[in-house]
Amino acid sequence: MKKTSISYDPGGWIIRETGYTPDDTVSIGSNFMVGNGYLGYRGTPLEWGREQYAACVVTDTYDMADGKWRELCTVPNALSGRLVIDGAALEAAGADTVFGLDLAEGRFFRTQETAALTVAEELVADQVDLHLVARRVVLTAVRPASITLQAGIDSDIWSLNGNHFSRQQWAVEALPQADHASGLLRCDLQTGESRIDISVGHAARILLNGQPVTNESVDITNESWHGIGQDFSLAAGDRLELELYMAVYSSEDGIDPVAGVRTSIQRAVSSGWSQLMHESRERWQQFWEATDIRIEGDHEAQVTTRFNIYHNVIAAPRHSDRLPIGARGLSCQAYQGAAFWDQEIFNMPMFLYTDPGVARNILAYRYHTLPGARRKAQRLGYRGAFYAWISGKTGDELCPDYFFVDVLTGRRIRNHFNDWQIHISPDIAYAIWEYLEATGDWEFVEQMGAEVLFEIARFCFSHLYFKKDKDRYETIRLLGPDEYHENVDNNAFTNYQIQFACRAAVAVYERLQRDNPDRLQEIVRQIGLEPAETDDWRDVVDRIYLPQPTLAGQLIEQFDGYFQLEDVFPQEVAARLKDPGEYWGWPNGVAVATQVLKQADVIQLFVQHDAFPIEVQKANYEYYAPRTQHGSSLSPSSYAIIAARVHNRQQAYDFFMKSNTVDLYNTNKAVSGGTFIGGIHTAACGASWKVLFNGFVGFEIENSCMRFRPRLPDQWKSITVPFVFRGQPYRVTVTAGDVLLEFGGDPQHITDLPKVLIGDTEYTMQESLRVPFASGGKDD
Amino acid sequence: MKKTSISYDPGGWIIRETGYTPDDTVSIGSNFMVGNGYLGYRGTPLEWGREQYAACVVTDTYDMADGKWRELCTVPNALSGRLVIDGAALEAAGADTVFGLDLAEGRFFRTQETAALTVAEELVADQVDLHLVARRVVLTAVRPASITLQAGIDSDIWSLNGNHFSRQQWAVEALPQADHASGLLRCDLQTGESRIDISVGHAARILLNGQPVTNESVDITNESWHGIGQDFSLAAGDRLELELYMAVYSSEDGIDPVAGVRTSIQRAVSSGWSQLMHESRERWQQFWEATDIRIEGDHEAQVTTRFNIYHNVIAAPRHSDRLPIGARGLSCQAYQGAAFWDQEIFNMPMFLYTDPGVARNILAYRYHTLPGARRKAQRLGYRGAFYAWISGKTGDELCPDYFFVDVLTGRRIRNHFNDWQIHISPDIAYAIWEYLEATGDWEFVEQMGAEVLFEIARFCFSHLYFKKDKDRYETIRLLGPDEYHENVDNNAFTNYQIQFACRAAVAVYERLQRDNPDRLQEIVRQIGLEPAETDDWRDVVDRIYLPQPTLAGQLIEQFDGYFQLEDVFPQEVAARLKDPGEYWGWPNGVAVATQVLKQADVIQLFVQHDAFPIEVQKANYEYYAPRTQHGSSLSPSSYAIIAARVHNRQQAYDFFMKSNTVDLYNTNKAVSGGTFIGGIHTAACGASWKVLFNGFVGFEIENSCMRFRPRLPDQWKSITVPFVFRGQPYRVTVTAGDVLLEFGGDPQHITDLPKVLIGDTEYTMQESLRVPFASGGKDD
Ligand SMILES: [Ca+2]
Ligand SMILES: [Ca+2]
Repeated sequence: MKKTSISYDPGGWIIRETGYTPDDTVSIGSNFMVGNGYLGYRGTPLEWGREQYAACVVTDTYDMADGKWRELCTVPNALSGRLVIDGAALEAAGADTVFGLDLAEGRFFRTQETAALTVAEELVADQVDLHLVARRVVLTAVRPASITLQAGIDSDIWSLNGNHFSRQQWAVEALPQADHASGLLRCDLQTGESRIDISVGHAARILLNGQPVTNESVDITNESWHGIGQDFSLAAGDRLELELYMAVYSSEDGIDPVAGVRTSIQRAVSSGWSQLMHESRERWQQFWEATDIRIEGDHEAQVTTRFNIYHNVIAAPRHSDRLPIGARGLSCQAYQGAAFWDQEIFNMPMFLYTDPGVARNILAYRYHTLPGARRKAQRLGYRGAFYAWISGKTGDELCPDYFFVDVLTGRRIRNHFNDWQIHISPDIAYAIWEYLEATGDWEFVEQMGAEVLFEIARFCFSHLYFKKDKDRYETIRLLGPDEYHENVDNNAFTNYQIQFACRAAVAVYERLQRDNPDRLQEIVRQIGLEPAETDDWRDVVDRIYLPQPTLAGQLIEQFDGYFQLEDVFPQEVAARLKDPGEYWGWPNGVAVATQVLKQADVIQLFVQHDAFPIEVQKANYEYYAPRTQHGSSLSPSSYAIIAARVHNRQQAYDFFMKSNTVDLYNTNKAVSGGTFIGGIHTAACGASWKVLFNGFVGFEIENSCMRFRPRLPDQWKSITVPFVFRGQPYRVTVTAGDVLLEFGGDPQHITDLPKVLIGDTEYTMQESLRVPFASGGKDD
Repeated sequence: MKKTSISYDPGGWIIRETGYTPDDTVSIGSNFMVGNGYLGYRGTPLEWGREQYAACVVTDTYDMADGKWRELCTVPNALSGRLVIDGAALEAAGADTVFGLDLAEGRFFRTQETAALTVAEELVADQVDLHLVARRVVLTAVRPASITLQAGIDSDIWSLNGNHFSRQQWAVEALPQADHASGLLRCDLQTGESRIDISVGHAARILLNGQPVTNESVDITNESWHGIGQDFSLAAGDRLELELYMAVYSSEDGIDPVAGVRTSIQRAVSSGWSQLMHESRERWQQFWEATDIRIEGDHEAQVTTRFNIYHNVIAAPRHSDRLPIGARGLSCQAYQGAAFWDQEIFNMPMFLYTDPGVARNILAYRYHTLPGARRKAQRLGYRGAFYAWISGKTGDELCPDYFFVDVLTGRRIRNHFNDWQIHISPDIAYAIWEYLEATGDWEFVEQMGAEVLFEIARFCFSHLYFKKDKDRYETIRLLGPDEYHENVDNNAFTNYQIQFACRAAVAVYERLQRDNPDRLQEIVRQIGLEPAETDDWRDVVDRIYLPQPTLAGQLIEQFDGYFQLEDVFPQEVAARLKDPGEYWGWPNGVAVATQVLKQADVIQLFVQHDAFPIEVQKANYEYYAPRTQHGSSLSPSSYAIIAARVHNRQQAYDFFMKSNTVDLYNTNKAVSGGTFIGGIHTAACGASWKVLFNGFVGFEIENSCMRFRPRLPDQWKSITVPFVFRGQPYRVTVTAGDVLLEFGGDPQHITDLPKVLIGDTEYTMQESLRVPFASGGKDD
C-alpha cells in the first residue's frame, strides 16, 4: 500500500515525503540516503545526530568492538550543524517539512518553511570523488530574521555494536587555495580491533546573497563536536547559503588518509558546489542512460523501479573488486556490511546486463576471498571453498553461532546459518557461469573464475554423502533458502545447485584443458588438484539425487519429509505465537514442524533452473505460494518471476510491487527489541530489476541464445529495458502485442549473435526487430 | 545413602521399612511388589486403592486409551478390602507399621499393632500358577474388639494414560469344590482399542481361630466395588484369618479368560494358603540356588544385590517368548511395559549366565517382532530391521514424536528417540552373538537369530552413508546412549556396535553356508537376500569409521565435534536451569551445547568391547566420569564395571552401590508435574548382577574361553557367583588373594572347556580350581 505522505513528480524521478513525524526518522534516513559504493550517507538533514540515526557508513572499515559482531564503521559526521532562527533551533517537523530524493542526480533534499524564511537543503555523495559528500543549505528570508549557524564534525555517532574507535584526534589546518572557505577541520581515528586509520575532514563556505563571508575560526563546542559558529541578521529577501564538504579516507584505501582528506577537501572547495554538482550529475546521466527501465502506464511502478535501481547501484563497489555488497548496502551497519547469497543471486543480475564490470568486481571479490572460504571449509572438516554465509573483507565467516534469543525463555538460540546453509558456494559457481554466458568473458574465468569453480566443486564433493543402497549422492543436514527448516536433507534447490556447480567446474576444466593447458596446470599446481577429482565431479553430476515432481500432483518436495509436516498456512501458524517477537524457525519455532516456509525455495529453484515443464512450475507455484510467509524480503520477487512465467500476471504484478516497495512503503518497526532493523534491503532492490527483465520481459539465455517470453501486466502499456549481452548494447520494448528488440552497437556485430528466440520462434537479429507477440491477455 | 527407616534381617533376605508416612507410598508399592513375569502386583496392603497407586499390571494387555500412549493395562484389584476395628478403619501409619519384602520367597508383608490387635498381612504372586495372586491378613486380638471385614474387587483403578476398558461386567458364581470359601466374584472387561478380553476373579476364605467361617453373599457396595462384608466380635487371643485369591487372564493367553479364572481360583481355594505358599516357595528356592550371589563382609551390598536380582527376575517373561521386559517391569505402567535396549544390554546378562532359557525368550521376542521392526525401517526409508526404541507386543514403534514439554514455554518438544537412536538394532545383534558365545546354542541362531542378524545388518547398511572423500562409512544424525546430545554424527558407541553387528551377520552367514546351506537358502528366499548384500556387510566391517583414541590424551571422542563443546561439569550446568523441571537435552536444554552427558557412552563402548588398551580405558574413564550427570539409571553400573576394570575399586564400589540402591533408597519425587515416574528401574536391577559378574569378578569371554580379572572392593571378604557357561554349571569365588572356580556339572564334561584365563594366565579346568590372584590391594 502506497504511503499517502509520499508523492512523485510527473517526470518520474523525484520522490517527496511530506509531513514529517518522528516515526519516519529511520525510513527517511534509509530511503533518501545518498551514496556511491564507497560510502553511504543517510538521508538526514544538517541538525540530525545519533538519536536520528544520522550516519556515514564507509566501506572496507570492518572492525569488531563487542567481541561478536564484525561490522563496517560509521564515521564522525562532518556535515553536522545547527540553524537557530530568531532564537529557536530549526527542526524538521510537521506539514511544512518535505523530505525527498531526486533519483536522476542522486540528491537528497529537505525543504521547510518557517515564519521567517524558507529552507532548501541538499545532500549529494559525489560520483567523481567517492570520498566526498556535500551538503548545501539555502535560507531565503521572507521577513527580517536573526540567524545563528553552526557547522562542523559530530563525533558522537550512532554505532550498532559498540564504539569502534580506540583513538581519536582533532586537527585544524588552513586550506591554501580556498578563498573564503573555512580551514580544514579533521578528525583522525583508529579502529580498536582492526587497527584501521580513518580520517574525516570538514570544510565550510558561507555566502550571503552570493558573496562569500569570511569564516570564524573553529570553536570547540564540546568534547565530541567541533566546528564553527556564526551569527547573521537577515533582511527580507536575503539569501544565506551554507556549503559543507565532508571527506573520508581509511588506511585500507591505499593512500595516507590524512593526505587523502586534504586532497578531496581542497578539490571540493576549489571547485565549489555548482561545479561538483555538475560533474556528479553527468555520471548519474550516463548511469541512467544505460540502466533506466521505462514503464509506460504505471507511474508508481516507474518511480519505485527507479528507486530500487538507485539503491542497488549505490550499494555496489564499482571502485573495487575486493569488497562485498552488503545486505543493507551502506545504509547502516545492520547485517555487518557483508555479502550473503543475495549478492550473486539478487544484486548481480542488474549489473551483469547493464554494467558487467561491476558484476566482474563482485565475482573477483569471491576469488580474492577464497582463502577465507578455504579456512571455513577446513575448520568444519571439508575441502575446497565453503563460502561464508556472511562475508566481509577476508571471506572468513562473520556469522556468529548465536544471534537470536528465544523471547519466551531468554535463552540464546544456536542457528546454523553459518555451517549448514551450504548453498552459498554453488550459488557463487552459478553466478560465475551466468557471468560467462552473459558476457562471454572467458578471460575472467581463466584468471579467477576457474579456481573458484574448482574449489567449490571440491567443497561440494567433500560435503556430499553417497548412499550405496540408493546409488546416489545426498546432501545431509542443510538449511535451504527457506530458513525456517534447518537440519533438512536433500533440499531440492541445493542439490540442483550442486549439480550445476559440478557441471560448470567440469566444463571449465575441459575448456581450459583444450584452450589453455598451461593456465590449467598453473591452477592444478596452485591448489593441488588431483586428476581423479574431476571424475568425482562428473560422478556427482551423474548421480546426485535430484528430487523429481511427484506423479500425483507434479510437486517437488522442498526437502526429504517436507510433505509429511503439518500442512497449515502462515496465518494459522502466526496465531500460535505466544509472543509476537518469537522466532518462527529452528529449533522450536512455530513453523518448524509445519509446511510453512519463510521464503521461496522450490520456486527459487525454478527461477534459477527453468528446466521443468511449465505445468510442474505452475503446480508448485500454486502449492507453495499460500504456504510461504515471506519472512524474507528475497521472497516476493522470486514468486513474481515464476508467477509471470506460469502466466499469472496479476499475482506477478502484486508480488513485484510488494518487492518493489518493501523499503519505500515500509511500515515495519525500524527498531525491534532495542535492535535496529531498518536500512535498505538491497537484494530486493536488485530483485526489482531481475523481475522486470527475467519475469515480465521473460529474458533467458538458452543454448547461448537470448530468449524472450514476455508477460505484460494489464496495468502497463509497455516496458523498455536497455541491456548488454556479450558486450553489445540492446534495448527491448514489450507491449501487449509485440516485442521490439533494438541493437545499439556497431551494426557489423549484429551477425555475431546466433539467433533470438521470441516465445518459441527463432529470429535473426536486425538493427531493429519487431515481432508480434501476445504478452497480455487472460491469466491462466 | 541408606534410608534410616530401612533395615535388613541378619540372614540377608528380609527388608523392612518402619514408620510409614504418605511420602513412602510410591516407593513401598514399587520396591515391595510381588510378581512372576506374567503379572506384577504392587506392594500394597488390603486397604490401598487408586490413590495409593495400588495396581496389578498384567503383561500382554497393550491398549491405547488416549491416542498417544500404548501401555499395559492395570486390572481391577481383586485383593481389595477394608478392616474396621472398633469403628475405625485400619490405616497404615506411623511407627507401628512395618512394610517389608521377604526376598527368599517373594513375599510382601505388612505388620501393624493397634491398641486392640496385631495385624500380619502377606501377599504373594504365585510362581506355579502365574495368573494367581494371594493375600492373607491375620488379626490377633490383644483385647476384645469388634471387627468389620470387607473383601472384594475394586474396579476403580489407577491407570496412567486413560481408562482402557470400554466394557465391564460383573458376575458371581458358586465354587463347587470350595468348602467354606466365598463364591467366585468376577469382573469381565474388554479393552477399548485393542479389544482384548480380560477376566479378573476373586474368592475369599475366613477362618476364626482356625475354623472356616461361612461366608455372606456378595454385596454391591457401590458401582465400582463389589465384595463381601462381615462383622466379628473378637475376644482377647482370638485369631481371625482372611485369605484372598485373585486370578487374572486375558484373551492373549490362549484360553478363554473366564474359564482360566475359574480354574485358577478353584485350584487356589482347593489348595489353600499353606499348600500354595509351599509350592511357590519351592520355586523360589530353586531360583536362588541357581542365582544367588554371596557377598561376604558387606551385609548392605548382600541384601540390596538380592533385591535387584529379585526385581530383574519378576520382570522377565519366563513363560513366553513373545513378550518384552518392560523398562519398569510390571511395577507400573510407566514406560508402557515395553522393551528398550535395556532389555538386551542390562536385563539379559543375568539370565544368559543363570537361566539361558529366559535369555532365549528375550531374543526370540525380537525374532517374533521382526515384522514391526521391518515396518519401522520401511516407514523411515530404510531396509531390514530398525527395532522400535519402545517395543511392545508387535515391535511397532510405541515412542511418540512428542513427549516432553518445555516447562519454560509450555511448548511440546520433538525428541528423536524414535527415529535417530539407531543403536537399538545393533545392540540386539550384539546380544544374539553374546548369547551364542555364552550358551553355544547354534540351533537358536539357525532357527531365529540368523534372520534377525541379517535384517539388522541390512538396516545398518541402508542407514549408513559413505564418504567418498574419506573412503569410509559414517553414521549421521544419531542419538547415542547419551540422550542429551541428539543429531550427532559418528557416535563412537554406535559405530563400533554397527561394525560388530555386521561382522556377526557375516560370521553367521558363513557358518550357515558351511553347516546348513538348506536353512540358509530358506532364509535367503524368505527375506529376499541378495548375495551382494553380504559383501556390503563385509565392506562395512572393513570401512566403517571407528573413532580412535586421540594421540594426545588417548581420548575417544563421543561423537564428531564433542570435544569442541563447552567443557563444563554437571553442577555448573545445573546452576543454569531457570526451572528445576527443565529438560536438559535436545533441542535447547542446558546440556546441549556442553560436554555434559546424561549417561555412559564411550564408557558403555568399553563395557561392550573390551578391545582397548587399559590406559585408554582409564584415560577415558577419568575424562568422562566427572562430565556425566547420570540422568539415567543405566549409567552408574557401566561406570562401575569400567572403574573396576581400570582398578579404581573404591569408585567402582560407589558406582555399584549407587546403582544397587537406586530404587530401594529412592529419594526422588515419585510424581513430577502430575506424571507418575515411580516404579522399578529393572535395567539397574539387571545391571547389578552384571557389575558383580563382569566388573568385580571380571568375567569376560575371550576367544571362546572364560577369563576372570577380578577386582575385589576392600569392603568385601569374598564374592561367590553361580553361573552357567555353555550348558555347564560353575561357581566362582573371589577373595582378595585367590580365585576359586568350581565345576558343578557331570565331571566328564570338564574337559569340554578349552582353557580358563585368570588374569593373564591360562589354566586347565578341574572340578575345583583354586588360583592365587591379587584382586584387592591399592587402587591405581
Ligand atoms: Ca539461464
Ligand atoms: Ca565379550
